[in-house]
Amino acid sequence: MARKGVVAVLDRPEGKYELKEYPLPDPAPGTVLIKQELGGVCGTDIHMYHGHLPGITYPICLGHEFVGRIAALGKGITTDFLGKAVKEGDRVIVVPGVGCGKCYWCEIAKTPTTCEEGFAYGFFSDGNKEYHFTGGYAGYVYLHHPRTAILKTDLPLEVGVLLEPISVALHAVSRSNIQLGDTVVIQGSGAVGLSCQVCAKLAGAAKIIHIGGPTPFRIKMAKEFGADITINIAEVKDPEERIQMVKDKTIKGIGADVVFECAGAPQAVREGLDMLRRSGTFVEVGHFTDVGEVSLNPFTHICNKNVSLQGSWGGEVEGFVRGLPILEKRQFPYEKLITHKLPLKRLNEIMQAPDKGYILDDKESLKITVSSETS
Amino acid sequence: MARKGVVAVLDRPEGKYELKEYPLPDPAPGTVLIKQELGGVCGTDIHMYHGHLPGITYPICLGHEFVGRIAALGKGITTDFLGKAVKEGDRVIVVPGVGCGKCYWCEIAKTPTTCEEGFAYGFFSDGNKEYHFTGGYAGYVYLHHPRTAILKTDLPLEVGVLLEPISVALHAVSRSNIQLGDTVVIQGSGAVGLSCQVCAKLAGAAKIIHIGGPTPFRIKMAKEFGADITINIAEVKDPEERIQMVKDKTIKGIGADVVFECAGAPQAVREGLDMLRRSGTFVEVGHFTDVGEVSLNPFTHICNKNVSLQGSWGGEVEGFVRGLPILEKRQFPYEKLITHKLPLKRLNEIMQAPDKGYILDDKESLKITVSSETS
Amino acid sequence: MARKGVVAVLDRPEGKYELKEYPLPDPAPGTVLIKQELGGVCGTDIHMYHGHLPGITYPICLGHEFVGRIAALGKGITTDFLGKAVKEGDRVIVVPGVGCGKCYWCEIAKTPTTCEEGFAYGFFSDGNKEYHFTGGYAGYVYLHHPRTAILKTDLPLEVGVLLEPISVALHAVSRSNIQLGDTVVIQGSGAVGLSCQVCAKLAGAAKIIHIGGPTPFRIKMAKEFGADITINIAEVKDPEERIQMVKDKTIKGIGADVVFECAGAPQAVREGLDMLRRSGTFVEVGHFTDVGEVSLNPFTHICNKNVSLQGSWGGEVEGFVRGLPILEKRQFPYEKLITHKLPLKRLNEIMQAPDKGYILDDKESLKITVSSETS
Amino acid sequence: MARKGVVAVLDRPEGKYELKEYPLPDPAPGTVLIKQELGGVCGTDIHMYHGHLPGITYPICLGHEFVGRIAALGKGITTDFLGKAVKEGDRVIVVPGVGCGKCYWCEIAKTPTTCEEGFAYGFFSDGNKEYHFTGGYAGYVYLHHPRTAILKTDLPLEVGVLLEPISVALHAVSRSNIQLGDTVVIQGSGAVGLSCQVCAKLAGAAKIIHIGGPTPFRIKMAKEFGADITINIAEVKDPEERIQMVKDKTIKGIGADVVFECAGAPQAVREGLDMLRRSGTFVEVGHFTDVGEVSLNPFTHICNKNVSLQGSWGGEVEGFVRGLPILEKRQFPYEKLITHKLPLKRLNEIMQAPDKGYILDDKESLKITVSSETS
Repeated sequence: MARKGVVAVLDRPEGKYELKEYPLPDPAPGTVLIKQELGGVCGTDIHMYHGHLPGITYPICLGHEFVGRIAALGKGITTDFLGKAVKEGDRVIVVPGVGCGKCYWCEIAKTPTTCEEGFAYGFFSDGNKEYHFTGGYAGYVYLHHPRTAILKTDLPLEVGVLLEPISVALHAVSRSNIQLGDTVVIQGSGAVGLSCQVCAKLAGAAKIIHIGGPTPFRIKMAKEFGADITINIAEVKDPEERIQMVKDKTIKGIGADVVFECAGAPQAVREGLDMLRRSGTFVEVGHFTDVGEVSLNPFTHICNKNVSLQGSWGGEVEGFVRGLPILEKRQFPYEKLITHKLPLKRLNEIMQAPDKGYILDDKESLKITVSSETS
Repeated sequence: MARKGVVAVLDRPEGKYELKEYPLPDPAPGTVLIKQELGGVCGTDIHMYHGHLPGITYPICLGHEFVGRIAALGKGITTDFLGKAVKEGDRVIVVPGVGCGKCYWCEIAKTPTTCEEGFAYGFFSDGNKEYHFTGGYAGYVYLHHPRTAILKTDLPLEVGVLLEPISVALHAVSRSNIQLGDTVVIQGSGAVGLSCQVCAKLAGAAKIIHIGGPTPFRIKMAKEFGADITINIAEVKDPEERIQMVKDKTIKGIGADVVFECAGAPQAVREGLDMLRRSGTFVEVGHFTDVGEVSLNPFTHICNKNVSLQGSWGGEVEGFVRGLPILEKRQFPYEKLITHKLPLKRLNEIMQAPDKGYILDDKESLKITVSSETS
Repeated sequence: MARKGVVAVLDRPEGKYELKEYPLPDPAPGTVLIKQELGGVCGTDIHMYHGHLPGITYPICLGHEFVGRIAALGKGITTDFLGKAVKEGDRVIVVPGVGCGKCYWCEIAKTPTTCEEGFAYGFFSDGNKEYHFTGGYAGYVYLHHPRTAILKTDLPLEVGVLLEPISVALHAVSRSNIQLGDTVVIQGSGAVGLSCQVCAKLAGAAKIIHIGGPTPFRIKMAKEFGADITINIAEVKDPEERIQMVKDKTIKGIGADVVFECAGAPQAVREGLDMLRRSGTFVEVGHFTDVGEVSLNPFTHICNKNVSLQGSWGGEVEGFVRGLPILEKRQFPYEKLITHKLPLKRLNEIMQAPDKGYILDDKESLKITVSSETS
Repeated sequence: MARKGVVAVLDRPEGKYELKEYPLPDPAPGTVLIKQELGGVCGTDIHMYHGHLPGITYPICLGHEFVGRIAALGKGITTDFLGKAVKEGDRVIVVPGVGCGKCYWCEIAKTPTTCEEGFAYGFFSDGNKEYHFTGGYAGYVYLHHPRTAILKTDLPLEVGVLLEPISVALHAVSRSNIQLGDTVVIQGSGAVGLSCQVCAKLAGAAKIIHIGGPTPFRIKMAKEFGADITINIAEVKDPEERIQMVKDKTIKGIGADVVFECAGAPQAVREGLDMLRRSGTFVEVGHFTDVGEVSLNPFTHICNKNVSLQGSWGGEVEGFVRGLPILEKRQFPYEKLITHKLPLKRLNEIMQAPDKGYILDDKESLKITVSSETS
């Protein structure tokens, strides 16, 4: 095993990533050292880069979507979360969020994504400056927390790295009351939108209407990932027209049964509610940071609509466990979501992609990934 | 039996009620003629008086909360909805909404209050100008629709007339996921607010925080109807202060488990969400007409909050059936909600009460009722 | 239009079907006359043939699964249940059960399949001996009940006729709490078992274990209809061995997440509970008549298991509405379920098929259908 | 603080309790030492005394219902589970079950009472023979597990000791789908039956029918704890007659909305299902050990009944948290359930009470408690 490992350290909001080398820890009992293979770049990482997430301290090693191989096992770890035997060299997907399992949220509300006493790789330092391998933007990740869940897998890296967004989508779908035969609207063509679309489809939606874009590439992806109908917001610019288009595709024009807001734009909430049928379910799973407000009418959009409006925050361990067999079935070309696979040293450029129209290396990005290779 | 009956006819929005006399119908098979005893005045009646409800045609006979005695039974009617034998002279409560029972909403969504093909006494004409007894502001009501549900009762009039607002509250509570031991906030001190409070209490809320007023009378009523803590908005004028007061009364200051918005003020929605704990449930049951919009933050109020926000429209037959044994237990001094019992001819004055600070005959009103007496 | 139509009349339990001719009714306002095209033979029809269903009066015209074309439209009928325009000659699927829409079950419990005041084609006479076209084993069916739901379709007959068993399966799945990624056991290889399997798969089951047979044909069908693993009870005869086989395919050997009992054998209930994981859901959707009892242990099978055991009776209108777009997607070779298409005059032979090892015309039967052709 | 504490050690199934003295542990960081005040004797303790619970090792210190005062706080413990400051001398109720918080049951199924990797005071040794204070039948209990939840309270001992059975009842009620206005049957007059009755009442049941006894004392208790109607099985011996009596008290004779089986007798399951209405919910919360089987008819009792049959195993931390404010409201004379308060040395006699008609010291027992006093 290597003696040292590299970590991409972001010094401050909108600062610089620097690759630093540190000695690798020898895993304590109940912990695991992971040789990172591939890490995904999430919109939340971009928000944290810009300092838009409260409660984050810098310097920090970001990256909460990652797959790697077991470099060293601490004493006592012989299986993964599901009881499969693990050994050094096995590929595993890491569940980044570690609920405390004993607070009000974990035990009473049973909504572990609101746990405030847990830990999350890629979000927090471990508070112990002797080692630094706490996020996926690194050559190694040290799973120092003894409650960390790992899942053994033979999936290709480009598929396995998507389990985290799939877990977010599964949380959203579990709150959506989706029923077999439903007509479902997906707002937003990012990784969360397409993941929700896949999960809504697999949960029995008979008709998926995708509203997104704005590029032809994203619309193409929406089609390949199960949309029956697509509406490009760059082409149909008037929300009223989009609302009518959706209604026209529903029973007696009443509107969609379920709408997933994955665009992260405040106005999309209002538009989504307007295209939802009465007594339907609206799931808000696109706002992972504060990007402004929206005006709603309590009579029209909520009370008279007899609606169920669900906020869905993050992904649970449950989503990883349920999502793994879904990815393993390969019913969709998941690997196509990975548009870029770049070395860690290019993180500074990667963070600028959204500001450059999501273009990187002359190619439109959807899910950018970083490999542990430094060059 | 009388040969003629009086009807209070409202000619147009913000028009005049005029008492008109018409011949009483002889009930057709499957129908019932009711001698009205007491009718409640609902906020929605005030909205319709002002013409603020879409889809209403005038002239109209309003009044959808009413209790009466059976004046004549059409052939085939021998029992009430629950199978109790009925005969002329029996007191019954009428369920004003009559779902069609066969549309998408009734059979598929199973949310009959969104049925668009049904009928409702006090909201619609029967489309047949030969008779006019279609609402509770009258001496008689003709239950011409053969699917109308009636419930036999021995309750005093002043209690029985409250079954309609109780049915609205039961609908709201059924959507609230209230659990035994919960801390519940009620926003609003009207009939719907106090009814929701009673039902939340009976459903197991351990602590009720009532935010309302603004008069001492309304706060006093809130206390008599089960509030553990009351906050008068006339005294605590700063919403931030009210939010903090609620949080201080909850486990670790996380906020209330469930909030019922019964104030019908758009800003109350935002305030209510701010005092709700994460993963809690917010029920919007106060906006029965369009009174404006509210600005919400999709991140703060919905997505990150992992909230369930439920719109609850109207009351179902189920609410009448479940509410009847509740009222019969008399666990609260329901009759105290009836502040006024006035003859039909005073309807014109009654409609002005909200504009006069809810004062009528020098007395603050809460639930005003009209008796079938004309003088 | 023809002036007369044929009806297959069963005179008494275990009696004889006789083809009788009657004048066709002229449809009253709100009703429809259907020229039957294809009717399915259901296990319940066999039970009724043997007189094993309580409350049925004979003579009777059986057949509650059927597709036909509109022969004549009564005044006022211009669309199907979903608002699609209909005209003479259009193919429609008929929902045989007609809930009353206003009883305790329809309005309060909201479980219309337990309605006791409704009507069902193929189960009841209309109580009016002037016409006799009340079931699908006939050349025509008169939809005399004005609340009958019809669904326009372009599906081939052999697919459309399956919407009824699919509605039964959708009811069962709606009570199963199935989650994406679940491991699901299906017990029983008949039309209900395969329909539940299809619906469980479409609802997101990641692994389907089918226990059935006993013929190779049925196991082959189970595989074509989505089973990941099949266990033929003719080959694996020991229930304990089957239980262990299922457990071996689940996470840490804990058992299946959901089990659907569609075999209709009392012992299958016990076996199914034994292969279910703790806190799982067992759905009993196979016992459509009384075929005996089973011994269960309240500690082992229920209390300690922390199980949810759901009885699921019949199919709702909702199942037809949700099932139609599912069949239209043709994700499975539904038409292969139809093993026989025979004229009405062969009904007497058809009723004997179960007693002859489900062999008819030297071919194993699964779903037998009857066409309106009499020869 | 005392240097030594007493423990009642049961050497083997049906063996002898012996009071042994051991040195008190000095609480490690994150742990607490409790000076026991009052412990409840549960039916499960009797089962364990007889060796009827699988997986228990002897010698053992039983007792999982207990209230005590903090004798010593390990480093880091400053508050109870709900954030209330705690110090030495404070009275606390201990949640005996400690879920692991990270297994399939805790994180995925979210049913912590089926966790197989947790710990429970009064059920297990701590595997460390240096100290022995692992159950409530002792002068002290050492909460050695750092995830143990404690709840500070000012409740009298005789009320606080009941929080454990209340937590079992709250779990059952949470699985019962009880709705406001329901008619609920309680089968069984023990501590679980009366606790379920209290919780069903507080959750909104409008009519409680209690079937139990067989002594007048138990029926009297049932009445004081909220039964509207009582049926003594010693007086009404024929199950058919009891079934009819229940039906006669329900809407149109359809049967009860919800039935809780708390008698722990297999035949009660069948009787309870027979008195349940179609589409109702049956909760099995009475079989905490194997006492035999019952014959059920899958058609009559499950499928045709369209029933939801819920097993409910044990109590969750959630039940303690929700139950505490319920007990604090003192809406029922909880302390009357405590029929005996005896010293530890009488445990051998206590274990014989069920075999002697529940008579101890010439008095019928319901909840027997043991105080930490040894004489």
